[in-house]
Amino acid sequence: MIGIAVIGAGRIGKIHAANAAGNARLSLKYVVDPYGDAAGLAQEHGAQTTDVEQVWADPEVAGVVIASSTDTHLDYTLAAVRAGKHVFCEKPLDQDVDRALGALKELEAAGPKILLGFNRRFDPNFASLRAQLSQGAVGALETLHIISHDPAPPPPAYIKTSGGIFKDMSIHDFDMARWLLDEEIESVFASASVLIDPEIGAAGDFDSAKIILRTVTGKLCVISNSRRSGYGYDQRIEAFGSKGLIRADNALETTVQTWTEPGAKNAPFQNFFLDRYADAYRIEMQHFADVVEGKAAPLADQHDGVGALLLAEAAEESARTSSVVMLAAKYAQ
Amino acid sequence: MIGIAVIGAGRIGKIHAANAAGNARLSLKYVVDPYGDAAGLAQEHGAQTTDVEQVWADPEVAGVVIASSTDTHLDYTLAAVRAGKHVFCEKPLDQDVDRALGALKELEAAGPKILLGFNRRFDPNFASLRAQLSQGAVGALETLHIISHDPAPPPPAYIKTSGGIFKDMSIHDFDMARWLLDEEIESVFASASVLIDPEIGAAGDFDSAKIILRTVTGKLCVISNSRRSGYGYDQRIEAFGSKGLIRADNALETTVQTWTEPGAKNAPFQNFFLDRYADAYRIEMQHFADVVEGKAAPLADQHDGVGALLLAEAAEESARTSSVVMLAAKYAQ
Amino acid sequence: MIGIAVIGAGRIGKIHAANAAGNARLSLKYVVDPYGDAAGLAQEHGAQTTDVEQVWADPEVAGVVIASSTDTHLDYTLAAVRAGKHVFCEKPLDQDVDRALGALKELEAAGPKILLGFNRRFDPNFASLRAQLSQGAVGALETLHIISHDPAPPPPAYIKTSGGIFKDMSIHDFDMARWLLDEEIESVFASASVLIDPEIGAAGDFDSAKIILRTVTGKLCVISNSRRSGYGYDQRIEAFGSKGLIRADNALETTVQTWTEPGAKNAPFQNFFLDRYADAYRIEMQHFADVVEGKAAPLADQHDGVGALLLAEAAEESARTSSVVMLAAKYAQ
Amino acid sequence: MIGIAVIGAGRIGKIHAANAAGNARLSLKYVVDPYGDAAGLAQEHGAQTTDVEQVWADPEVAGVVIASSTDTHLDYTLAAVRAGKHVFCEKPLDQDVDRALGALKELEAAGPKILLGFNRRFDPNFASLRAQLSQGAVGALETLHIISHDPAPPPPAYIKTSGGIFKDMSIHDFDMARWLLDEEIESVFASASVLIDPEIGAAGDFDSAKIILRTVTGKLCVISNSRRSGYGYDQRIEAFGSKGLIRADNALETTVQTWTEPGAKNAPFQNFFLDRYADAYRIEMQHFADVVEGKAAPLADQHDGVGALLLAEAAEESARTSSVVMLAAKYAQ
Repeated sequence: MIGIAVIGAGRIGKIHAANAAGNARLSLKYVVDPYGDAAGLAQEHGAQTTDVEQVWADPEVAGVVIASSTDTHLDYTLAAVRAGKHVFCEKPLDQDVDRALGALKELEAAGPKILLGFNRRFDPNFASLRAQLSQGAVGALETLHIISHDPAPPPPAYIKTSGGIFKDMSIHDFDMARWLLDEEIESVFASASVLIDPEIGAAGDFDSAKIILRTVTGKLCVISNSRRSGYGYDQRIEAFGSKGLIRADNALETTVQTWTEPGAKNAPFQNFFLDRYADAYRIEMQHFADVVEGKAAPLADQHDGVGALLLAEAAEESARTSSVVMLAAKYAQ
Repeated sequence: MIGIAVIGAGRIGKIHAANAAGNARLSLKYVVDPYGDAAGLAQEHGAQTTDVEQVWADPEVAGVVIASSTDTHLDYTLAAVRAGKHVFCEKPLDQDVDRALGALKELEAAGPKILLGFNRRFDPNFASLRAQLSQGAVGALETLHIISHDPAPPPPAYIKTSGGIFKDMSIHDFDMARWLLDEEIESVFASASVLIDPEIGAAGDFDSAKIILRTVTGKLCVISNSRRSGYGYDQRIEAFGSKGLIRADNALETTVQTWTEPGAKNAPFQNFFLDRYADAYRIEMQHFADVVEGKAAPLADQHDGVGALLLAEAAEESARTSSVVMLAAKYAQ
Repeated sequence: MIGIAVIGAGRIGKIHAANAAGNARLSLKYVVDPYGDAAGLAQEHGAQTTDVEQVWADPEVAGVVIASSTDTHLDYTLAAVRAGKHVFCEKPLDQDVDRALGALKELEAAGPKILLGFNRRFDPNFASLRAQLSQGAVGALETLHIISHDPAPPPPAYIKTSGGIFKDMSIHDFDMARWLLDEEIESVFASASVLIDPEIGAAGDFDSAKIILRTVTGKLCVISNSRRSGYGYDQRIEAFGSKGLIRADNALETTVQTWTEPGAKNAPFQNFFLDRYADAYRIEMQHFADVVEGKAAPLADQHDGVGALLLAEAAEESARTSSVVMLAAKYAQ
Repeated sequence: MIGIAVIGAGRIGKIHAANAAGNARLSLKYVVDPYGDAAGLAQEHGAQTTDVEQVWADPEVAGVVIASSTDTHLDYTLAAVRAGKHVFCEKPLDQDVDRALGALKELEAAGPKILLGFNRRFDPNFASLRAQLSQGAVGALETLHIISHDPAPPPPAYIKTSGGIFKDMSIHDFDMARWLLDEEIESVFASASVLIDPEIGAAGDFDSAKIILRTVTGKLCVISNSRRSGYGYDQRIEAFGSKGLIRADNALETTVQTWTEPGAKNAPFQNFFLDRYADAYRIEMQHFADVVEGKAAPLADQHDGVGALLLAEAAEESARTSSVVMLAAKYAQ
């Protein structure tokens, strides 16, 4: 059994702790969270509470899940790696792209591996789409549409510390775009607005954005983000290839339909990301066990973390300046 | 141009008159209806009114469309054929199966052809289903489900002269079953109820029925009939074959969907048979032109008329007696 | 924690053992199976192997899951109840309806409760359909269609001991019909054929059946069964009410579609009943915990077991005699 | 009856001639085409051939349909209006936006009306979407996605005279965007590529484009264009509002589905614009009859023609310069 420590007992830490505890190859040994309810979470899964120093020191711990606040991600990742622990770090690696870039060399040279928590790569729908795309189900990929709209906006207090819509929300879509396009992105254009909640604007952020990415060979990707859909979690991908289209549609709560005079109505769309991505989180933990056992390279690593951050930063600059932002000069991906 | 006379200026006569007038190969010469507004319909399409005697006598008339009341269908058909006219007769051929059987020999011996108005065979959806089924798209046909529910029940006055649900409504489905099963039907079982409108029961009829047909090789067909769906015209077919299922679904008014909190909602189902089958009626008239020109045998003829009637009569008997009714003895199909 | 013993370490026993072990309120103490790999299953979940005598005797065991061969269901159920244990018994209660009837009085008088394993009642899709139907989402229920086709036929050896298609396969649909119709069924008509595999016919069984149930108030239910669909697990329900239709459709493996020249293609239908009903089995075990704790009456009990068996027996008789079988005389439901 | 002349006997002229001839309020009097088969088209509908001078001079002609080559649109429109004829002019009004702007004053001052042939406004799906949007079915419109991909690319010879993808293809989508957004567009960004056919690139044009329009209040619209889909005519709209989404999906050839081992497959998408928009063209001609009779203002007029052209020109400039193009300075819409 692989000893696991989870740092952070919040919403996402609870998911990872439960998936680690429920995984036949993993043993959840520690939960660390000086601010949250580490004790309750530890007790639920038969684990102990402790501090990070003991985590680093304990030779029984082979893997560390970092689910603490964003500003601690990079420091904990570096400390864990220095202590010889494999890391499963929630996204983003850091809110500051230069700090993240500065750490790349050390992370790469280290023995332990970094799995960066881009959970959507593990969603069975998106994974199936990518696998079929790679196998040429619709020929060569030409353009890509990613829709990612949340059911409802977060509280304004959250917005202020979120890093902005591009780093907080679009970052998942930038990762998905990088994963599916599978070639260097050359430029970013973003147009963003405050259409939903003026308080989001007052906090200096946007709530709606449309983004166009362009690769070095001219492939094009459109990303649509909104903080509020009004109908549930809208997470769709369409990949246009030389022989057709492959797409992943939204998930419904049930297969029940009602047919009445106004027309046929489906069950509601899944509304909460923990429901929508429950399978993805479980499979992601399974993959982390593979990474720790050396059976698989991380499906997303520190480079993917930095790559998505660079796109987020470029999108922010584009939206602020109403101009296209070129990427190549900044970072040789 | 082929001269055409339409007998009957009611709802269905108007459809046929318009389709004949709009067909490049046909010329609508006469509209005959001593009780209805023959003059208005004739004028709309640049035709004349007359009586049936002149229709039979006019050598310019090559085809006659019989859309008059059901009790006149067989007599007009016989008279038209005797006058050397091709006939496009609305279903049913007659409400009395023995009368229809008695006329078969003469109709068959006659030179002119009889196209029996089973319009659903001309619906592009059902026609495509049958063509693909014949080409083995899902292997050999094993069982069949036909759903045929009207949007809303007719007035009780109509029920009384309708001949009952099996001859009035199921008859289309019996024809569809015969056309798709394409082998001799051995027995009929029907269970029927009054679930929608007690007045229909008071008129001695049923408003809901489930029917099982069984062919000589054991193929099975379920037909579901209801006088009221509550959501539009429900006309679906599922054909289960040895390699899968082929089905025709309901038609929607538009492709528009609205996605809101309760879920995604489609546009309403098409609600009126003249909309749902507008294409079928047009194509059917095109086929009648082919029949008159000798380019095609009627897709449905007097035998199909009698075959469907026999099933309707058997279903009625089955529902009244709660027993299976064997068919073979009565009529060598 | 509620102590649980699982009797039977076969395919379905493994499911229940895993769900009991994974349930926070239940503790899997014993696995019993003198013929199968009880030891392996027990070890996987940290339980012990034993014999039924010790299960009956152990006061720590509050609930017994009976997943052994069908001919032992009733005896084990009676023994468990006599030992004061609550029972979760796989369907059917017995293959012999008279034996099952004979045991009813004792089972009813007993203190412990019997949960009969009609797992489909716990499927979130069917459960949602029934809940909405009860709340009047489509008015009063009038007629019902249940389609239940397996992906592929079982080996002929299985057929011989299965009790026949009606007791082995349709029994789930009879239970679903009873649950949704929610009133006394008056008569059964079944027409059954051998269309898929002559070996099934040689074994004295059918592989295809269409069934019509009729309730005392004239409500009608059609059940369609086939041992082979050719496209996965086909499990659909349509409930026609006075204001519309509510239906549960098949589950797909993913939400991915490919759009190419021949048309848009969905992901395959779920193909294996353990995948299709994984959620249902988990929720069913959760419900058994409620039953043992006295928080809920069993959603399906011994009466439901007998009720479904009576319909299966009537359907068999109907198919063999080509006649309608009346139910009321035999058993006051 | 309103006398109609059709100028241009090509593909689109034939559609309009047939719709005029089949319209009960219109009488097709003339077909004019010195280069094409005016005689054949005239004969088919019982009309005469002539030249434009006689069309302008004939007092029986109340409406002129201009379906000739693009470079003649504006001249014929001006001549027709000066002769007192109402005009139904195919898009675009002209390929040169300054010429079009220069003619606006005269066209506006004239008595006769100009109906500009943006046929998609008459498509029942898009018309229903817009009507429901206006009625607040999904609250206030915030952002818009328009997908418009052709089945297959035109021959390179066509590309060279087409005016480029933005004026030839996107122009329909610019009109749709203007019609649905219903407020002033402030800026355009387009990224375009040659991904399908290098010959299109050699001709100086693009075959793929993604466009973002931004209105003065920050509403955002994404347009996706491709010269080849590989699966038929892809014409979809999604309008995101404050309470949900309203969308129009693609049209299928039939409602038939086949369910086999690889999954459920729909009928092909409609593949040809004359099929896809057959209803729209018919309804558009009906609307022109209303315009000529003074019963309706044109649903799209010369301002809409110029408005769409300005967006096309801005998109072209944006794609060529990789920069955002502001619109307001050029033309007060």
